[in-house]
Formats: sequence, C-alpha cells, structure tokens
Amino acid sequence: MTATTERLEQQLAFLTEADKLKSILRATSLCDGSRRENSGEHSWHIALYAMTLAEHSNRPINILRVIKMLLIHDLVEIDAGDVPVHAAYDVAAHEAKEQAAADRLFGLLPDDQRDEFREIWDEFEAAESDDAIFAKSIDRVQPVISNLETNGGTWPEFNVTAEQLESRVGVKVSRGAPAVWDILQTRIRAWFKA
Amino acid sequence: MTATTERLEQQLAFLTEADKLKSILRATSLCDGSRRENSGEHSWHIALYAMTLAEHSNRPINILRVIKMLLIHDLVEIDAGDVPVHAAYDVAAHEAKEQAAADRLFGLLPDDQRDEFREIWDEFEAAESDDAIFAKSIDRVQPVISNLETNGGTWPEFNVTAEQLESRVGVKVSRGAPAVWDILQTRIRAWFKA
Repeated sequence: MTATTERLEQQLAFLTEADKLKSILRATSLCDGSRRENSGEHSWHIALYAMTLAEHSNRPINILRVIKMLLIHDLVEIDAGDVPVHAAYDVAAHEAKEQAAADRLFGLLPDDQRDEFREIWDEFEAAESDDAIFAKSIDRVQPVISNLETNGGTWPEFNVTAEQLESRVGVKVSRGAPAVWDILQTRIRAWFKA
Repeated sequence: MTATTERLEQQLAFLTEADKLKSILRATSLCDGSRRENSGEHSWHIALYAMTLAEHSNRPINILRVIKMLLIHDLVEIDAGDVPVHAAYDVAAHEAKEQAAADRLFGLLPDDQRDEFREIWDEFEAAESDDAIFAKSIDRVQPVISNLETNGGTWPEFNVTAEQLESRVGVKVSRGAPAVWDILQTRIRAWFKA
C-alpha cells in the first residue's frame, strides 16, 4: 500500500464515521416545525451563517478557520450525544466523554491531520481566541432563529425566560457579534411580550 | 432602521429560507441505511470531505473558496429539487429552474453579497476553474461511499453498472482528485465482482 493510499484509507474511514452525526438529534426543530434537527445539518447551517454574517464579528477573524471549527465542532456528539443549552447536566462527566470522543474520532485520521483537527476543536472548546469567540457566537444564533420561527420552539418545554436567554445565549452572541444579538434581542422581547 | 440592521434583516431572511434545504431528500441513504439523506446534511458532509481531502487536489486550490462553493452549491434545490446523478431528466428545463432559484434565493441577500454568492455558485456550475473542478470532484465522492456502505445503495434501483460509474462519476472525480478516484475504483470493482 502506498503512503497516499494509506492516508486516503484513514481519511475515508474518518469521513464515513462522521456520517453518524446525521443521526444525532438536537432539541431544536427545523424552521417549519416538521421534525427535530440533526447535528449534521445544523453544522452545515451554522457554517453558512458564519460565511454570511462574518462582517458582524467585532474582532478580526480568519473565516476559513471559523468555518473549519464549525464543520467539526459537533463531531464528538457521535459518542457523547448532544446536550441542549437549557438542560441541566453533569458538566465534568460530559466533558470527559467529549474528550474521549475527540481522541477516538480524530484518531481515525493520519497523525498530522489528527493533530490539526484536534487543535481546531480544542481552540473552539476553549472559546478564547478571536476565531473561537465568533464561532461560538454563531453557534448560538441559529437555534434562536429556529425557536422564533416555531413559536418559541423548545423554550416552553424547558421553561426558558427572556432573562435566561440573555444570560445563557445573549452574553455569548454579544461577545463575538453584538449587532446580531441586538436584532435577536428585539425579536426575543417581542415574542415573550406577545 | 440603521444600515446594519437592514443588512442583518436581509441576511437572516436568507439564512432562514436556507433551512428548507434540510427537507430536500436525495437518492442516497445514510451510511447505516436508516433513511435517505437530505441536501443540508450532504452539504455539511462534503464541506468536511473537502477540508479533509484538500491535499489530494491535482491543481492549486483556495480551500476557503471550495468550501464556500460546497456550502451553497445545493441551495437552488429548495426551488428546483434534487436530480439524482443516474436519473434521466430534461437538462435545459432543470437548468432554467435552477437559474430562477438562484435569482430568488441569493436575491434575499444585500446586493453586494447577492453578487458574491451568485458568482461563487456560477463558478461551481461552470466547472472550469481549479476550485470548481475540485469541488465538483468532491461532490461526487461522498455518494459513492454511501452506496458502497449500504450494499450498492441506489445503484441496483437505477441499474447502474461499473462502466456507468466510470463515465458519470469517475471522469469527474479523476479530473480534480485522481488519487481519490483510484481508491474508489478499486472498491467499486470489488463490489461489482462480489
């Protein structure tokens, strides 16, 4: 087996395993309310969000790195599952599961690429770099839109209040994309008042 | 309304409309055969394919532009539907539908961004630039893997032969990523012989 073939075998094994992300269901629904969203299509949608809303970042970003982060950010859910933002859960136990998932999944790749993807994922999780802060902001925007489009979506189910959205979502969106939060906040306030 | 708010209203309208791509079903199934794949999750998966397989391009590429192409390449299906690669259809009529869809969908964006996205989509469709050739190659790889993972998937349904895969898929994959076609070809031949 040539070196190229060996790399390709590993890369295709990773890409085939990644297919499972399409079967991980999230709390949010599609905008038409027809069914719950999966993490594969969510990852596509937020990459498109980032590409479209990049100009609203309040700090300099490398949009390629942001999009790469968003394309891989949820892969660990294949092993660790999705935790809804408004749910209560054991943070330390979940983080340990995600770390093990990252070891396994990125470990399918050739070593150099394993390290590259892992570094991008670690950077996203740390939420400290400019790119990660913007990526995290964008990741929080799309579910708000889905919930607003489906008459509050899962907010009533989780007893979510406008104040809770400010503290759990608003703070994160504002950190990287304050103008986007301004418009969401107006829509959220109108929804809770109605 | 400020200029920023107006842009954001247009951008969010586009992103909300894009949600519909998650309800466009393709001919191929998920790798576990559980259900048909939709074009939203397909778009995520091939962006991840491009990010992972970029090194196998046989020409210089701008990977950011390739990924952008792949993120938006199927949006027109929201209005025009998906045409399976092995199906017979009226090419001119379908192209006219796709052009109208591109007018409507990218037309939701602010004018400068409408033009930018349309240019990227037109470039993909033309399949002439280095970036578009690699993007088109990658777009053809993922369904082959899905079909191989699901015991031929939709090949029997469309009476697909190994020769047909060579001419309809192999030529396009080889054009941008010959090493990837080599490995797929080996797997395809083994499948048809078995």
